[in-house]
Amino acid sequence: MIVILGSTGSIGVNTLQIASRFNIQIEALVAGDNISILNEQIRLYKPKFVGIKENAKKHLVDHKNIFCGEEEILDMLGRCESKTVVNALVGYAGLMPTLRSIELGKKVALANKESLVVAGHLIDISKITPIDSEHFGLWYLAQNKKFNKLYITASGGAFRDWDIDKIKHASLKDALNHPNWSMGDKITIDSATMTNKLFELLEAAWLFDTINIDAVLEKKSIVHALVEFADGSTTAHFADVDMKLPIAFALLGEVNDEILKPIDLLNMGAIEFLPIDTVRYPIWQIKDEVLAKPHLGVVINAANEEAIEKYKIGRCSFVGISEIVLDAYKKFDHIKPSGVEDTIKINREVRKYVNG
Amino acid sequence: MIVILGSTGSIGVNTLQIASRFNIQIEALVAGDNISILNEQIRLYKPKFVGIKENAKKHLVDHKNIFCGEEEILDMLGRCESKTVVNALVGYAGLMPTLRSIELGKKVALANKESLVVAGHLIDISKITPIDSEHFGLWYLAQNKKFNKLYITASGGAFRDWDIDKIKHASLKDALNHPNWSMGDKITIDSATMTNKLFELLEAAWLFDTINIDAVLEKKSIVHALVEFADGSTTAHFADVDMKLPIAFALLGEVNDEILKPIDLLNMGAIEFLPIDTVRYPIWQIKDEVLAKPHLGVVINAANEEAIEKYKIGRCSFVGISEIVLDAYKKFDHIKPSGVEDTIKINREVRKYVNG
Repeated sequence: MIVILGSTGSIGVNTLQIASRFNIQIEALVAGDNISILNEQIRLYKPKFVGIKENAKKHLVDHKNIFCGEEEILDMLGRCESKTVVNALVGYAGLMPTLRSIELGKKVALANKESLVVAGHLIDISKITPIDSEHFGLWYLAQNKKFNKLYITASGGAFRDWDIDKIKHASLKDALNHPNWSMGDKITIDSATMTNKLFELLEAAWLFDTINIDAVLEKKSIVHALVEFADGSTTAHFADVDMKLPIAFALLGEVNDEILKPIDLLNMGAIEFLPIDTVRYPIWQIKDEVLAKPHLGVVINAANEEAIEKYKIGRCSFVGISEIVLDAYKKFDHIKPSGVEDTIKINREVRKYVNG
Repeated sequence: MIVILGSTGSIGVNTLQIASRFNIQIEALVAGDNISILNEQIRLYKPKFVGIKENAKKHLVDHKNIFCGEEEILDMLGRCESKTVVNALVGYAGLMPTLRSIELGKKVALANKESLVVAGHLIDISKITPIDSEHFGLWYLAQNKKFNKLYITASGGAFRDWDIDKIKHASLKDALNHPNWSMGDKITIDSATMTNKLFELLEAAWLFDTINIDAVLEKKSIVHALVEFADGSTTAHFADVDMKLPIAFALLGEVNDEILKPIDLLNMGAIEFLPIDTVRYPIWQIKDEVLAKPHLGVVINAANEEAIEKYKIGRCSFVGISEIVLDAYKKFDHIKPSGVEDTIKINREVRKYVNG
């Protein structure tokens, strides 16, 4: 039995498919604005509880036990018997549900990478299984082995092949045009700025307790992770990009069924690993620093979320997103949040600064 | 303490380096014709016993306990206390020492792939650790995991980029010009005909108890092995080509020291996997059949060794090597050797047929 937070997004939908295939019951579904898909899911999966973001839409939901807004949803988690919560919420909104689930002794199958980016220092990693091709790949390769260095790959996002000058003022429509797959708006923009990969490095740093980690471009998105071992061996994880693979492992622990068709080695063409350059991706300038000071994740995340909102309503250019984040990072580079309250306070201050 | 059979070849020399680094004593050295290198090794490593191929060169060897020829060397193995024998002999000559070592309860670190090709059905696989980049890679990736399919890679050998018509009558000098590394003559010719890879598939079939195995071209020789798992993941082993890596694992069991520098991902360029075509490599026509009937390895090996001898003295063309092997394969495709004696007999018959 599981709880799914963010059930109508692509992770949520894939999770329901895997749950259905392996006869895992759905105890609760939580969604944002997409009430029609939610109602369809309620009809199919018959959850005991349902959560939505806003009270205003409560009357549209076909269910008797509805929880509205963060407070009520956190309360709902306490009523759930499920031992696993799939957290596929977007952005900072995913943090409190992650913390509460762990407090309640539940395991979190975590697609909400911002939970770890913002508050990795407050999270019991033993309770987390990441739903992410890169971290799944690392886990697959490094299981119980002593490694020297970890690598994750980046597709390069929407502007990887654009002229640098054109990128500066790229439109929202352009930024949402990911070359390799379709995801939600926020993560697609984070891919284009490379902030998504910076977040994944932070996530990996917490998950694998190392800062010997880097990212490289691999434009075909066939290789997701590589692990370098002391002896001189490097191993790599190849798979189609389909979140059902990490989801199945997160829900089942071990999987010997076919979740995806294997990669067709003879038809995949050439693959190569390229450096991530700081001109195309200005956020990459602070990569090493951020890995050394991972508690600054809360600053970067808050500034990034606000900057994306500005970009979406035309109040900053595409390159402006990274400029806002880098500026906030410099402004707040002295902070070191000590607990949850402090982290929440800094999150608020950074947002205020960015909008000030 | 170890015994090294074939100490003056490239595997032997690398084994001595690893033994020296990890303070492993050398109990016995066995070499063929290269007496000056052997004498140098005797001086440095002070083995208790020494073996050579021919009685005629005994007087040239600086040692008191010398064993000459196969019979005496097999006898010498019985006197050795070492629990591990590194068998880096070339071709069929490696078979009896492998069988005798196992009879004596010793572990065999096996670079002599012909032992398994000729007599895999007679060998206790639990006593074998392969010294080979491909099989080491497979082992590294598949350890204790249930796999669906194994892949090894081939460099393509000396003629991978030649016009097909030119290959037919390529000279010995051309065949010995391997694009990626320097090895002994026999294995370099076997690389050019792709027979080496056919042997490695047979070797892998015995070692990993599967016929779900194939080979693909990877011209950079950076990726040596890939393993496909049921869930849809494929993992790959990347490393520089240096036999010290599999040797270190074969001698030490587990290695956490740096044996090689890791691959530089950002400077390795593009890699791709290509099919092995049966026009360029006629031997590849029988690949699937041979995997289904691995006991025919003795026929292919005997015909191949004789054909190479003919080629080296100008009595057949380069493409003639494969023609001779394919012809012998067809002639003897009904045989099924039952024991050692039978295997020896068939080996002799095939050679007689090829030279008849």
